[in-house]
Amino acid sequence: MRIRRSLIDLDDLTPRELAYVFERTEQFEAAPPGALLDGFGCVNMFFEESTRTFTSFNLAELRLGAAVVNLAPRDLSLATKGETLEDTALTLGALGVSIIVVRHHEPGFPQRVALAFDGHVVNAGDGVHAHPTQALLDIYTLLEEFGELKGRSVGIVGDVLHSRVAHSTIRGLQRLGAAVVLIGPECFLPHDYADEGITIERDFDGVLPQLDAIVLLRIQRERFVEMPITDEEYVSGYRLDERRLAQLRSEAIVMHPGPYNRGMELDDSVLEFAGWRYLKQVHHGVGIRMAVLDFLVNGRR
Amino acid sequence: MRIRRSLIDLDDLTPRELAYVFERTEQFEAAPPGALLDGFGCVNMFFEESTRTFTSFNLAELRLGAAVVNLAPRDLSLATKGETLEDTALTLGALGVSIIVVRHHEPGFPQRVALAFDGHVVNAGDGVHAHPTQALLDIYTLLEEFGELKGRSVGIVGDVLHSRVAHSTIRGLQRLGAAVVLIGPECFLPHDYADEGITIERDFDGVLPQLDAIVLLRIQRERFVEMPITDEEYVSGYRLDERRLAQLRSEAIVMHPGPYNRGMELDDSVLEFAGWRYLKQVHHGVGIRMAVLDFLVNGRR
Amino acid sequence: MRIRRSLIDLDDLTPRELAYVFERTEQFEAAPPGALLDGFGCVNMFFEESTRTFTSFNLAELRLGAAVVNLAPRDLSLATKGETLEDTALTLGALGVSIIVVRHHEPGFPQRVALAFDGHVVNAGDGVHAHPTQALLDIYTLLEEFGELKGRSVGIVGDVLHSRVAHSTIRGLQRLGAAVVLIGPECFLPHDYADEGITIERDFDGVLPQLDAIVLLRIQRERFVEMPITDEEYVSGYRLDERRLAQLRSEAIVMHPGPYNRGMELDDSVLEFAGWRYLKQVHHGVGIRMAVLDFLVNGRR
Repeated sequence: MRIRRSLIDLDDLTPRELAYVFERTEQFEAAPPGALLDGFGCVNMFFEESTRTFTSFNLAELRLGAAVVNLAPRDLSLATKGETLEDTALTLGALGVSIIVVRHHEPGFPQRVALAFDGHVVNAGDGVHAHPTQALLDIYTLLEEFGELKGRSVGIVGDVLHSRVAHSTIRGLQRLGAAVVLIGPECFLPHDYADEGITIERDFDGVLPQLDAIVLLRIQRERFVEMPITDEEYVSGYRLDERRLAQLRSEAIVMHPGPYNRGMELDDSVLEFAGWRYLKQVHHGVGIRMAVLDFLVNGRR
Repeated sequence: MRIRRSLIDLDDLTPRELAYVFERTEQFEAAPPGALLDGFGCVNMFFEESTRTFTSFNLAELRLGAAVVNLAPRDLSLATKGETLEDTALTLGALGVSIIVVRHHEPGFPQRVALAFDGHVVNAGDGVHAHPTQALLDIYTLLEEFGELKGRSVGIVGDVLHSRVAHSTIRGLQRLGAAVVLIGPECFLPHDYADEGITIERDFDGVLPQLDAIVLLRIQRERFVEMPITDEEYVSGYRLDERRLAQLRSEAIVMHPGPYNRGMELDDSVLEFAGWRYLKQVHHGVGIRMAVLDFLVNGRR
Repeated sequence: MRIRRSLIDLDDLTPRELAYVFERTEQFEAAPPGALLDGFGCVNMFFEESTRTFTSFNLAELRLGAAVVNLAPRDLSLATKGETLEDTALTLGALGVSIIVVRHHEPGFPQRVALAFDGHVVNAGDGVHAHPTQALLDIYTLLEEFGELKGRSVGIVGDVLHSRVAHSTIRGLQRLGAAVVLIGPECFLPHDYADEGITIERDFDGVLPQLDAIVLLRIQRERFVEMPITDEEYVSGYRLDERRLAQLRSEAIVMHPGPYNRGMELDDSVLEFAGWRYLKQVHHGVGIRMAVLDFLVNGRR
């Protein structure tokens, strides 16, 4: 079995490949690329619910002309018939499937698929670990705004600890030279980033005026048993609202990987804010995923 | 955001547009129309189970060349991640989705989607409220039979109160000049139609010989806690059977939106009756839905 | 309604048709066949979970250009709205659906669909009864290996009693002249095959050196309440392992319909065995299903 290219985390792309994916995204958004995946079988296995990521992968695959099969968890022999994940992956390869897009709550699950599968695997989110296509569209949105990220300061606010998006995005931002500030209450802040040249900040208000971009995060309630901080405390310290928006630099932008919870990490004034870029991020999701799939299968042209 | 055309209830179509949709249905049934929705993303969100409507929308979309994504309720971040319906709709718009087809048990749900979504929404049934594409295929079937509906008498029999089909169909029939008779036991009859020039009738047998067409309805047991009438009473007063078929005018036809419950609202003799049009209705469902989707997206040509 | 060709069990194909399906499989594997089902609606109704069969039917249909609709059990009005299976089948026919692929735990279910449906039905597994496309790909794999099956000895090992695969495959093997040996503990062996010229064997080790091919079966735990034999007894008597592999003829092959349970019916040494043909079987699944669908719809050319 020859090793195929997969995208498990952002590190799987060299700087040159990253630039290529962004270049293709721009091309694909400008004009539909045609059937670059014609004849390729593509299986989406989403073990966790998803609106944005599921829909955008489906659209990206269909627009590239792939043969798309959605395997719901209940369809899988994994659970009920005692088949190992590795054997399911081998089997899909033997069926002629070329691409597996997988979301699972277990960190490392997509990597296990990739090791067994004779094809390309795209991680569409694995628990608290990584979500590389989300990171790509976040960074693409930032690059579109600022041209380059060197010297830019990006604040990631909220439940950083349980956010796979944050983990992937932080790596990408560092690689492109941005300064990353992780902001949140003690209970949501990771400690292992401390020695990687990343700033940790508990005081959102204090750091607000220095940021070029803010990435708000949803509190991942499904990832812990009990909320470690009261809603009131969180809102008071970290919700982005009109008062805090007023502290931002004039050209600063606000992003969110979605879904966002109105009233918690943001209030409605954010949704009307001129620098609110959420819908742009979502929009780039389809182009980014087309570019990733095309790159994995067809390589650089 | 510019306002796009949606189909929430039959009133959303002018008489001229109604005629156009029927004309296109005839054309599309005669010859496959080709990829009129090529490049358009179409999301089906069915929060209630459906065989007929789900399958016919899927077939209509695929036959028009759309990129079709089926979002099952469990896929949606709505439920588990606290996203509002409006934000889901905005998000799908940003993903480049052009059409949302939505079925939900909550009346007004598709309208809420339409208000937030930058695209076209088709109501595929919202609780007891409306089901406009079903009404369109009902009316198309009647027009095919009778040429025009002026002066024709159409009886709608059974659980009119809980039937979204009845509500939409009644409006359409009135607009086209048919006389509508609502027939059923007290508990299933609405009262607010009384002053709209619609006849209410409890005596099915008495009115039978005057009807040109009968639309039988299924008792929507899923919409109430306790059956307000015994099965025996219902069958005795309202089941269409051989004896009652014999009272019909010779050219009268019998319709049903499906699914029908053999033994309750009809017995097997109806299924062999020369005027039974259920399968024709079902057949027109695909053509009608192709015509609606094409009209909403491409307008009149 | 004219009778359409369906594939409920292997007996539905004459020897000549069987040969034709195999010939087309070879052609379709060599070069993609193009849109032989263009314009045909195809509904997959899987009432039991499936990875292999579901994915391979989907890929086969998409590669032939069919309009593919997947109806999950929860989508069906069958369960919640009291519609009979026959009426669902009639309805799908009226919608213009040409092909129904159905898996259900109830033996005879696909046959019931076929009797009511004005189109083609393919049985994708009905309880313990039959699984004809799996049998076809098993036989195709054997033919590919041995050229012809006359005089060849094929051992089917394990839970033969609850295996629909075994039932269909046994018929096919007999028709092609192979000697069939059913091997397993008393509790898993059928008795009604005794007088059909099939050998029943409880001693796996004794018969091993005479076999040209072995078909291992999964113990269908979901089909009985209590395991009628301990895992240790089963493993000791019937698990294929390194020691038993060494007893095989040099050119013998080992097959499995999948999913297989490592540690039960086989150990990991089988997966590295030169004669292990599981992935070939899986691979042929797509070609076989394309060939079957094409044959049912388009006939012999």
